[in-house]
Amino acid sequence: MPFVQRSGLNIRSRNRLHFSVNTNYQQILQEIYEETLPLKGQGKVADYIPALANVFPGHYGIAIQTLSGETFQVGDAEVPFSIQSISKVFVLSMVFKELGEELWSRVGREPSGSSFNSLILLETENGIPRNPFINAGALVTTDCLLSIKKEPCSEILQFVRGLSNNPTINYNNHIAESEKKTGFRNAALVNFMKGFDNIKNDVDAVLDVYFHQCSLMLNCVDLAHAFLFLANGGVNPWNQESILTASQAKRVNALMQVCGLYDDSGEFAFTVGLPGKSGVGGGVVAVIPNLLSICVWSPQLNKHGTSLAGMKALELFTTKTGISIF
Amino acid sequence: MPFVQRSGLNIRSRNRLHFSVNTNYQQILQEIYEETLPLKGQGKVADYIPALANVFPGHYGIAIQTLSGETFQVGDAEVPFSIQSISKVFVLSMVFKELGEELWSRVGREPSGSSFNSLILLETENGIPRNPFINAGALVTTDCLLSIKKEPCSEILQFVRGLSNNPTINYNNHIAESEKKTGFRNAALVNFMKGFDNIKNDVDAVLDVYFHQCSLMLNCVDLAHAFLFLANGGVNPWNQESILTASQAKRVNALMQVCGLYDDSGEFAFTVGLPGKSGVGGGVVAVIPNLLSICVWSPQLNKHGTSLAGMKALELFTTKTGISIF
Amino acid sequence: MPFVQRSGLNIRSRNRLHFSVNTNYQQILQEIYEETLPLKGQGKVADYIPALANVFPGHYGIAIQTLSGETFQVGDAEVPFSIQSISKVFVLSMVFKELGEELWSRVGREPSGSSFNSLILLETENGIPRNPFINAGALVTTDCLLSIKKEPCSEILQFVRGLSNNPTINYNNHIAESEKKTGFRNAALVNFMKGFDNIKNDVDAVLDVYFHQCSLMLNCVDLAHAFLFLANGGVNPWNQESILTASQAKRVNALMQVCGLYDDSGEFAFTVGLPGKSGVGGGVVAVIPNLLSICVWSPQLNKHGTSLAGMKALELFTTKTGISIF
Amino acid sequence: MPFVQRSGLNIRSRNRLHFSVNTNYQQILQEIYEETLPLKGQGKVADYIPALANVFPGHYGIAIQTLSGETFQVGDAEVPFSIQSISKVFVLSMVFKELGEELWSRVGREPSGSSFNSLILLETENGIPRNPFINAGALVTTDCLLSIKKEPCSEILQFVRGLSNNPTINYNNHIAESEKKTGFRNAALVNFMKGFDNIKNDVDAVLDVYFHQCSLMLNCVDLAHAFLFLANGGVNPWNQESILTASQAKRVNALMQVCGLYDDSGEFAFTVGLPGKSGVGGGVVAVIPNLLSICVWSPQLNKHGTSLAGMKALELFTTKTGISIF
Repeated sequence: MPFVQRSGLNIRSRNRLHFSVNTNYQQILQEIYEETLPLKGQGKVADYIPALANVFPGHYGIAIQTLSGETFQVGDAEVPFSIQSISKVFVLSMVFKELGEELWSRVGREPSGSSFNSLILLETENGIPRNPFINAGALVTTDCLLSIKKEPCSEILQFVRGLSNNPTINYNNHIAESEKKTGFRNAALVNFMKGFDNIKNDVDAVLDVYFHQCSLMLNCVDLAHAFLFLANGGVNPWNQESILTASQAKRVNALMQVCGLYDDSGEFAFTVGLPGKSGVGGGVVAVIPNLLSICVWSPQLNKHGTSLAGMKALELFTTKTGISIF
Repeated sequence: MPFVQRSGLNIRSRNRLHFSVNTNYQQILQEIYEETLPLKGQGKVADYIPALANVFPGHYGIAIQTLSGETFQVGDAEVPFSIQSISKVFVLSMVFKELGEELWSRVGREPSGSSFNSLILLETENGIPRNPFINAGALVTTDCLLSIKKEPCSEILQFVRGLSNNPTINYNNHIAESEKKTGFRNAALVNFMKGFDNIKNDVDAVLDVYFHQCSLMLNCVDLAHAFLFLANGGVNPWNQESILTASQAKRVNALMQVCGLYDDSGEFAFTVGLPGKSGVGGGVVAVIPNLLSICVWSPQLNKHGTSLAGMKALELFTTKTGISIF
Repeated sequence: MPFVQRSGLNIRSRNRLHFSVNTNYQQILQEIYEETLPLKGQGKVADYIPALANVFPGHYGIAIQTLSGETFQVGDAEVPFSIQSISKVFVLSMVFKELGEELWSRVGREPSGSSFNSLILLETENGIPRNPFINAGALVTTDCLLSIKKEPCSEILQFVRGLSNNPTINYNNHIAESEKKTGFRNAALVNFMKGFDNIKNDVDAVLDVYFHQCSLMLNCVDLAHAFLFLANGGVNPWNQESILTASQAKRVNALMQVCGLYDDSGEFAFTVGLPGKSGVGGGVVAVIPNLLSICVWSPQLNKHGTSLAGMKALELFTTKTGISIF
Repeated sequence: MPFVQRSGLNIRSRNRLHFSVNTNYQQILQEIYEETLPLKGQGKVADYIPALANVFPGHYGIAIQTLSGETFQVGDAEVPFSIQSISKVFVLSMVFKELGEELWSRVGREPSGSSFNSLILLETENGIPRNPFINAGALVTTDCLLSIKKEPCSEILQFVRGLSNNPTINYNNHIAESEKKTGFRNAALVNFMKGFDNIKNDVDAVLDVYFHQCSLMLNCVDLAHAFLFLANGGVNPWNQESILTASQAKRVNALMQVCGLYDDSGEFAFTVGLPGKSGVGGGVVAVIPNLLSICVWSPQLNKHGTSLAGMKALELFTTKTGISIF
């Protein structure tokens, strides 16, 4: 799947990291896939909403998209799944693009040291969430989006379709409805922050957009495509549109590194060593700046809500390729 | 200052990041130095022990050591200072080398979300500190060292002298004594963990070694030298000794990235984007894998205990050079 | 205002505390009123909803109702005010009467050590509130009431009218509406507990009843009347109806003693030494078992949300009369 | 065992609670003893120090001392045991007597909502313990005693001997030594507070006195004697010495009520309804103002560190006698 490649002369990237890699990605994907197959059956599919619990637990796929324009895949890499919290990166990017540094008065950029839906720090820190990747922080960025865009749901859709170069991507309204019916913890978070005046729009409107963004259905190839702009200095490689400045893209990567996986972030940095983001649908995406993006999907989760096989696959990927940002 | 360079054919680094950089580091250091001079006078010298409070607050120096063997420096880069918590990286490396993965049963590898000397999480997590860079975690690694080495203080000295290629480095016994007299918070931490049986040696013996390691006097050039092994796949470039495996070195860098600056780690990742470690003496060291290490020293701290000018200088360094791991 | 007095031979009270008191309550009330007048202007009227903020801050009244049938009062003792959290005692009593010990699987009976609307302990304790007098606990008892009664609002009204022997008592719908519009923290609490499955009814329905009970308008005389059953072994002295068993009444008093004033409970026990309950409308009620109940109202609050003059008046009352349960 | 009885005309008690009780205490004690015997074997003897773990778990005794001069007892009421935290009431009384209200700048008077040796609140509240009955608070009162008395250990001994009217009472140095060797948590607490400057004396000196006071050996009769001054308006009934003012005595009782049993205080208030204090040696003492004091001892503890049989026996005592302060 070819795209408009960034010019090698682009001034922004002159001193940035680059690779002269001759890796056989397809063979490595195949090896990883086989070595991690035994993990199937060990984790636990997210069951807090029926719509997620019904996913076939044995699904497993991986896709890589390189900046040189190559796509590699294995397994169920073209089966769409609910991306859940991976959507937080999209909404953060939309809002960061519009608000710039102003955004950080509403949400922090430090690891929380606690689980994805904790309210504890929020109480002692006056309703300012630690970072945009815990639920509270994502609800704030969604609230920001509502203040900026008249049709936030359709804007998100357009944004994600553009990034993934796939105009058929859509919401799963059944999942969004299901989350709304059982999303009491998120309702608690948004009401709590509204009490601190850190939510500006109607709480139900914020929750509606939030549950929709979580319900977005993408497959591994879509997500590898969609995250490539973060490996590409903020520029969408499919159409050369500048989504974020190079500096902003670096910062989003840095944030994913320190807090993209909640209280599993240190473990992910330690074993995988790449900026990444997970979702309870079982997807995990990681970015290697200036090189590629990779997405793994397996719905069975560890106790922190990270895909068990996904985490292991990415660890094997960095081990086998020797690629690391560290 | 030449050293035995790693062979470019070293198999470990084949697919790792590398740079073809033609940067004029000396000029950039000079620019940074001048642009950050106005920050002098804005922070606050650590005053919890008299020996630290007496440091001349106007000191300011920067040093770079590249893997290609060049050293660059500006300002007070050869004035020794108390490295304080930067020593945690040395002791962690000594212990990680000996114990390997076994170490992680005694200390975690997640950000704590709290300040460097907090006891709160320790209570709910049964005396297992979140990571080896908060005080509690460093006391555990020091305790591990006591279990492994008969003469821990002299072993640390030998280790740091070897890494920095400077046999004159020594402890400041005056500072060590001063810390012992006022180090009640650290005494609380070590007793607390002893109560959870996560300290195996005598509490006073652990504190004695800990206060000594914190009192180590190095200058910016020494520290840039000493951290270069982490940019070099774990190999001490001065004598080709393997300190850590390449995988372990990556992991120490990853840990520094997510928790090297306590509750300033996210901010550091966000603005600087490099693995680093700070000390309340005012030193900050950062590592660019496969390229260089850099140390800044200015004793005036922000409210998180990070050198104010040090943080800004490193931010400018990545901005001006365009170098980033993200 | 005469009522049917409990027989002195009532077997339940044979060994309970009683008094041979010849106190001139009216004169003492007058003294207290004058000595505490200087406190007016020092506290802060609750301003989180406009309807409360508009109360005239200078209101001040006290009423005593003895078991021997005498009523004493001073100041604005017949001006109705929003009783707010004092209503928690009524709903607890209604639910305790119906559910008995079963109630305590849904709510604890320990002091929380934190403020009235904190969520922190709730998160670590799986949605079981520490006690029925913090907001979270009161929302649970209200939820219990919804499960028991078809018309909870009218049942509460009937219950409070019966206890206070005043059929004109009513809700202030304006205040209830106002709370609903701004009660995000309570909405957060109820959603949070719903996420732990400790709220059984619809969250909006629970909040509606809760905001109504808080909006009940009673004056000091009404409240002194209404709390007398807790000084009378659980029996409503106005009609000899048994509201709670003697043992249950003792227990409600004990709970008020240890947690009736949130994180001001220790202070209240220490300075006043009586079981009591406060509300942010400025009312405070206290009970002296087997003797009397007393209500003070002054809308200006201390930083814990307790009426400043109310607390001082009750301290003076126990000092001047020498009455104490301790 | 006769003592100088307080005059019935004592002005302080005119309006205080009193009883015309014709209870057959001896028979009630016998009943309680038999009904609670089945609890033996269900709890767990404190085992954190060998000296305590070696106690015969089957010991069980109760003693009552009335203000009218009668003593009643059953079981092992004359077997001395380690009173542990019950000693906190003695040291608090000594220090409160000397410092008066000034004491409360160093220690609070609110329930902590957490366990007896927690450090969590201490960190957020700048080293000021919530109350004098959690370990941290007791270490502060002990520190106060060291500042006031030259020979604190011998002063404590003299004080307790006077209150219990038993000149043979002594420390158990074996237990004190044993606690010192394993008391890391208390060492953590005292160092932690020293770091906040809320300990004025040498930490080892404070711990030495603290471990000694905990090792005091009294039996049930001794303790019932020793707590009677709190039922007697602060006056030692054995020699008419005024230990505390009547107001101070009430306040110590109020504090015991709200926080005498750590995070079991609400439960104790709810089921027993009397001010009381427990120790991990298995003793529990309760006070009925103006009437009597009662001590139960059984070394088998519930999960909060309260004597299982002790709690039940006191509950039965208030049930059977109908006596309650509520």
